[in-house]
Amino acid sequence: MNDIKAKWIAADWGTTHMRAWAIGEEENVLAFRESNEGMKDLQQNEFEPVLLRLIESWLDDTKVTTVMACGMVGAKQGWVETPYLKTPCVPIDNNQLTTANTHDKRIIVHLVPGVMQNHPADIMRGEETQISGFINKNKGFKGVVCLPGTHAKWVNIQEGQISSFKTFMTGELFGVISNHTLIRHSTSIKGWNQESFEEGIHEGFNNPGLIASNLFSLRAESIVNNMDRDQARSTLSGLLLGVELNGAQSYWKDNNVTLIGSELLSNNYHQGLKVLGGQSQLFSLETATLSGLSSAYTNLVSD
Amino acid sequence: MNDIKAKWIAADWGTTHMRAWAIGEEENVLAFRESNEGMKDLQQNEFEPVLLRLIESWLDDTKVTTVMACGMVGAKQGWVETPYLKTPCVPIDNNQLTTANTHDKRIIVHLVPGVMQNHPADIMRGEETQISGFINKNKGFKGVVCLPGTHAKWVNIQEGQISSFKTFMTGELFGVISNHTLIRHSTSIKGWNQESFEEGIHEGFNNPGLIASNLFSLRAESIVNNMDRDQARSTLSGLLLGVELNGAQSYWKDNNVTLIGSELLSNNYHQGLKVLGGQSQLFSLETATLSGLSSAYTNLVSD
Repeated sequence: MNDIKAKWIAADWGTTHMRAWAIGEEENVLAFRESNEGMKDLQQNEFEPVLLRLIESWLDDTKVTTVMACGMVGAKQGWVETPYLKTPCVPIDNNQLTTANTHDKRIIVHLVPGVMQNHPADIMRGEETQISGFINKNKGFKGVVCLPGTHAKWVNIQEGQISSFKTFMTGELFGVISNHTLIRHSTSIKGWNQESFEEGIHEGFNNPGLIASNLFSLRAESIVNNMDRDQARSTLSGLLLGVELNGAQSYWKDNNVTLIGSELLSNNYHQGLKVLGGQSQLFSLETATLSGLSSAYTNLVSD
Repeated sequence: MNDIKAKWIAADWGTTHMRAWAIGEEENVLAFRESNEGMKDLQQNEFEPVLLRLIESWLDDTKVTTVMACGMVGAKQGWVETPYLKTPCVPIDNNQLTTANTHDKRIIVHLVPGVMQNHPADIMRGEETQISGFINKNKGFKGVVCLPGTHAKWVNIQEGQISSFKTFMTGELFGVISNHTLIRHSTSIKGWNQESFEEGIHEGFNNPGLIASNLFSLRAESIVNNMDRDQARSTLSGLLLGVELNGAQSYWKDNNVTLIGSELLSNNYHQGLKVLGGQSQLFSLETATLSGLSSAYTNLVSD
């Protein structure tokens, strides 16, 4: 316990992790906590206790503290389903927040809806908040934002709106291929080889149709030519990202892309784009998330 | 128990299954048995007992019966490692059989080696026997054979030799994507929709770089537009095969391909090729396997 009291609380509650920030009077971060109690491991009635355990010491018992939450917490299998906005749309519409049914009188929890696209069908939950935060910091932005992750999003933005987007489940493919196919015998868990990564980018980009063969080659190379496990892991990463960059060409060929994601992944995307002649720069994931939730909070209390 | 006595015994011992045939004096099949005691579940000392349990009733106690075995049983993690032949090579070279160290004096077990390619690195174990059997039945064949499976092989054959080949792990990808990614929530276990399969073939073939996005779309379509689970499963199958057929174009564009594999998978490949204007026909997997092992046996005893 400590004596930090939050003006309001920001929460990014995803599938596998939950992050919470205590925000002060000057919209400054007073404290941060995280947990691996992600949406996928929780029953509906467990969300409030999990949240309280993380944030209780930040609450002022004499008032109601607002919690602004985004991410998969708002999915059908989450705490309370928050219906999607539909593209084209502003990333966060304050009239569309959903309020969770809480027992503790010291908190009120608002959930930010995700965004859906009808044709071609696509969905996001969480990234809309980061996009909102990025737009807040770059008024009038027109162009492309990419949010690397388990399900990477390439997003067209204009006039403050998400006009269209496309999801690539490249990160999830990397995970299942590394962990559940014969390639697991040939790849390391962590190591890295930049040259192999870049070769993978070129090959994946130039020959996306050969991906299932190039993946098998990682196993064959390790048996036939003793390919090193770090090389195999880095080539795998490069191959899959190269294929994505082939499919996402219309997003980045004529645009300087802004990458919003973990530093590690964003750096991979930055390198991958650079190798192929594309331009990009990183924007802080935390800044984007907090700015998005902050503007939603500010709009809410000023209404 | 019965009174079938085998002249010799053929065995196809793969990663997940083991199949054995009792062969008679006229090279006819007297009996067949199978088991799911595949290579991956067995320790080295378990192979002989498993084999004996399956074939013991076919043995003549007064003589030594030859067992000809192919497949992953000859891998490093199998019964006894049989070093690979190297392309270009005949699919089965009788001087390169490996003999397992057995305790039971009634059997002698010969293992057929797999085939390896140095550049680009590739490997097969089992398919070489089917290729050998197909060539036995089609003397002088020059052209392309495709062996659909967990790890599909596309093989160039000329002058009785495997000149080169390429493996696509499309089948394994289908398995892990169906079972271990978010798509599992949207696909059926069995059902089929031919139209969706064919749409998937076209899309995978035309836009292989979009595969990670088209896969995510199956989930998004099920949420946004209530896509049916059979449709999703069939589209998934079509998408992955379409990508493979893009990458394997050099094998089938100017060739009438012979497909050797399970009827179900071979039919998918046949349909997929047809949709894209390719030509193919099926050749029996069992005939290929038995003919390959049979010629190896005949060469062995005639030496």
